[in-house]
Amino acid sequence: MFAAESLVRTLVHQGVELCFSNPGTSEMHMVAALDRTEGMKSVLCLFEGVATGAADGYARMSRKPACTLLHLGPGVGNGLANLHNAKRAFSPVLNIVGDHAGYHLPFDAPLTSDVEGTCAPVSRWVGTVPSASELSNMAVKAVQESFGPAPGVASLILPADCAWSDIEPDVLDTVEMPSLNAVATKHIQKAAKALKSAKNPVLYIGGTACLEGGIHEAARIGKHLDCRVVMETFAPRISRGAGRPAPTRLNYFGAQALEDLKDCDLLLVAGSKPPVSFFAYPNSPSELTPEGAAVFTLGGPSDDIEGALLLLANALDAGTPDIVSQTSMPLTNPDEALNPVSIGMSLCRHMPQNSVVCDDSTTAGLALFPTTQTAAAHEWLCLTGGAIGIGMPMAIGAAFAAPSSTIFALCGDGAAAYTLQALWTQAREKQNIINIVFVNHSYRVLNIELSRVGAGEPGPVAQAMLDLSNPKMDWVKLSEGFGVPAVHANTTGAFEEALLHALATPGPHLIAAEV
Amino acid sequence: MFAAESLVRTLVHQGVELCFSNPGTSEMHMVAALDRTEGMKSVLCLFEGVATGAADGYARMSRKPACTLLHLGPGVGNGLANLHNAKRAFSPVLNIVGDHAGYHLPFDAPLTSDVEGTCAPVSRWVGTVPSASELSNMAVKAVQESFGPAPGVASLILPADCAWSDIEPDVLDTVEMPSLNAVATKHIQKAAKALKSAKNPVLYIGGTACLEGGIHEAARIGKHLDCRVVMETFAPRISRGAGRPAPTRLNYFGAQALEDLKDCDLLLVAGSKPPVSFFAYPNSPSELTPEGAAVFTLGGPSDDIEGALLLLANALDAGTPDIVSQTSMPLTNPDEALNPVSIGMSLCRHMPQNSVVCDDSTTAGLALFPTTQTAAAHEWLCLTGGAIGIGMPMAIGAAFAAPSSTIFALCGDGAAAYTLQALWTQAREKQNIINIVFVNHSYRVLNIELSRVGAGEPGPVAQAMLDLSNPKMDWVKLSEGFGVPAVHANTTGAFEEALLHALATPGPHLIAAEV
Repeated sequence: MFAAESLVRTLVHQGVELCFSNPGTSEMHMVAALDRTEGMKSVLCLFEGVATGAADGYARMSRKPACTLLHLGPGVGNGLANLHNAKRAFSPVLNIVGDHAGYHLPFDAPLTSDVEGTCAPVSRWVGTVPSASELSNMAVKAVQESFGPAPGVASLILPADCAWSDIEPDVLDTVEMPSLNAVATKHIQKAAKALKSAKNPVLYIGGTACLEGGIHEAARIGKHLDCRVVMETFAPRISRGAGRPAPTRLNYFGAQALEDLKDCDLLLVAGSKPPVSFFAYPNSPSELTPEGAAVFTLGGPSDDIEGALLLLANALDAGTPDIVSQTSMPLTNPDEALNPVSIGMSLCRHMPQNSVVCDDSTTAGLALFPTTQTAAAHEWLCLTGGAIGIGMPMAIGAAFAAPSSTIFALCGDGAAAYTLQALWTQAREKQNIINIVFVNHSYRVLNIELSRVGAGEPGPVAQAMLDLSNPKMDWVKLSEGFGVPAVHANTTGAFEEALLHALATPGPHLIAAEV
Repeated sequence: MFAAESLVRTLVHQGVELCFSNPGTSEMHMVAALDRTEGMKSVLCLFEGVATGAADGYARMSRKPACTLLHLGPGVGNGLANLHNAKRAFSPVLNIVGDHAGYHLPFDAPLTSDVEGTCAPVSRWVGTVPSASELSNMAVKAVQESFGPAPGVASLILPADCAWSDIEPDVLDTVEMPSLNAVATKHIQKAAKALKSAKNPVLYIGGTACLEGGIHEAARIGKHLDCRVVMETFAPRISRGAGRPAPTRLNYFGAQALEDLKDCDLLLVAGSKPPVSFFAYPNSPSELTPEGAAVFTLGGPSDDIEGALLLLANALDAGTPDIVSQTSMPLTNPDEALNPVSIGMSLCRHMPQNSVVCDDSTTAGLALFPTTQTAAAHEWLCLTGGAIGIGMPMAIGAAFAAPSSTIFALCGDGAAAYTLQALWTQAREKQNIINIVFVNHSYRVLNIELSRVGAGEPGPVAQAMLDLSNPKMDWVKLSEGFGVPAVHANTTGAFEEALLHALATPGPHLIAAEV
């Protein structure tokens, strides 16, 4: 068989079931191999950033890797921003990239590119397959590497001549995958001691500590010690809503974030690292840990932090935590102009249990987050790496990992314009995704940032560079152009109606919410 | 003043007049600086690949750099594919990338990324500004480096704390820019001698040899020696049409390319390097130079090849070349189904003098090229690096460099879907660009390549991965969604009408040509 076929068989055997693909000529044997192998679904994407964002969304929900199939250095380039987000989310992703046949490289054909060098900045592991006989072993290695610890992007580069080599099928061994490190009992005891002797500790959680188990145990500790539980601003995945605790979310803006942590004398960090400002600003600190506060790290992204928090809560003899009850949000006047809060109230009323929210809506998302706190239990996936353009792609991957859930993609209009090609794959795969584009015709967050960095009053050129109203994008047309039905909504009533219609009608939808 | 302001002043002084921008928080002082400085126009793009493709198009037409303004590693990633094309086109581009403040980097905030490492694979020069006092010198250095020789991408990384530093304005020196190397007279004499003693030489031209001067001199030589003049398949810019010679274009497909060069005993290479196959195929050669043929390189991308060809033609005492006359293409039945050839015939009839064609339409473009050979004189810009998604962005840059020309962007539907956000900038800048999308609902070239690489008969999965018909993209809606008026055309008559309307009506247009 072609070596490519052996690769796909090996991946399926290791539990990789999905391939988000944007292939070119050098990947044609992989395309043929996907045809001949049971157990791997291939999902075509019109742009590589859609494929990589989808792989991230799938990983966040399933906690195992999907693979991509990209075309040489430029293909990786197009997928790089969402691989950066995946890296920052500690998402396992198997990034498969085709390259020219090895013997063809010295001739420097037009697509010859430094594939390894392009993958390196976002990958925890990069390997180029040296020969067909090594392919299966390296594929297993790449899957292992994607699990870490900590999980991340493993890039496997497959030269075309290797893919098309004729080989004997490998015997498929079942190989153990790395798991997160168990935190030592002694370290947990030290943490318990530190917490008990602090006057005003803050339990700062992030990463997998924001999953259902972690957030529960953190809340037990918080209630028992009467201490604040604060979670990182952009966690990869937050289990929240009715029946779950509601830790404080660290504010995005530095001054407010400092307020969230004020007077704390011990920051106990679980699943992340001490908080830092998203950007640097003149005369503002990079570190957000209050001066004089001690930092104790229970564990980071490589550690089984859910397990550690359980042991810590038990060591403290903590009881049951406070949890959120589902509340019925009041209906507002349906003729009222729409805003992120009223959108959040609609969502809070109607989001089905186990929904997944993919948030790529910088300013609107921050406003909407508190309003949906008391919705039915759901998962909230944040923009971990700050590279906008992940919302609609991430929703594709989440929908594959959670096929019975309703998926919401919340996108700023600036962010949505980056990877709108994702809508086509959503339509092709008939996924139950409700895309909400916050249409404010502006890079709204940059209007705020421009004044925060002290660059002075914006003149007409600067204003124009943050303004998306000339011309105004028509998101209904853009969505329909890619095969996803869409409506405009500029009142709370219109939004509510659009949301109920989308929930009642299978397949993807887009609501262009004028805010 | 802010150091960023000093940077913009320096660039303007060195002749950089355009900035294709997609800024974020770390570039806000650059945004403010663009406001305060005369002589630099800032052009907002919704996606970085649009900015970098536009910079390439501008460089190909003006032969000087525009700058970009991108946001950290993910911003470079999004722009990388078209920087790869620019690198392969030997286009001078000044790639300016903002980074976090230097002191903020150790805290590993979410957008922290290896900016230098991300730029490196596509750049001939990368530099991070170490301090505000170095900024002006490094900016001059970066502009110089973009000129080469050979010209290429110079990436200048600007930390935010450097951009916001308060400095005294620099004294602006005028600095000499590198120019292409003159080819030595002795080398030209050797070339003349080699040509004269060969039985069946081929003059193989590429790069700047395909510009008006080079193509003229090459044709003089070809006529004088009665030898073939063959140009590379994907030259950065080809001066062609009525009043100009028409060298043979090397076929894309290997077997036909070998035919183009058959029986040649000397390949005289001017402005490029000996031809190689675009991809590797099992049992096909990578090198296309016929076995046994000698290769003589007159000069490459670093050399003043137009000058060398003039001297060589004179040394051979060559006369005037054969040139193409404008021919009036016959009108076909207007109800006939549209195809690339009939589109080419319409273009041949109506393309205004000095039009610029930005070709990103792999299969359709190859068919259409011969049909437009006898159109009014025009420039044809090819997909140099094989990274699809440059047509509509490149048209933006070409329109700025040639404001009185009509610009055509020829895009396959697969390619157009990569960077369709370019339409928004075209509308915003009211550019006279006619985008022609060849709608065949397919990665057509991959259907051909799949059989060429010997991957066997495609099954349903493989076929689906090359098929774009489920759902069909609606290019009229997509175009209108970004503010560019558009029509469908599926007959020669409808296309002709759409083309005449677009030519008569200022601003951008899109024709969705069903082929």
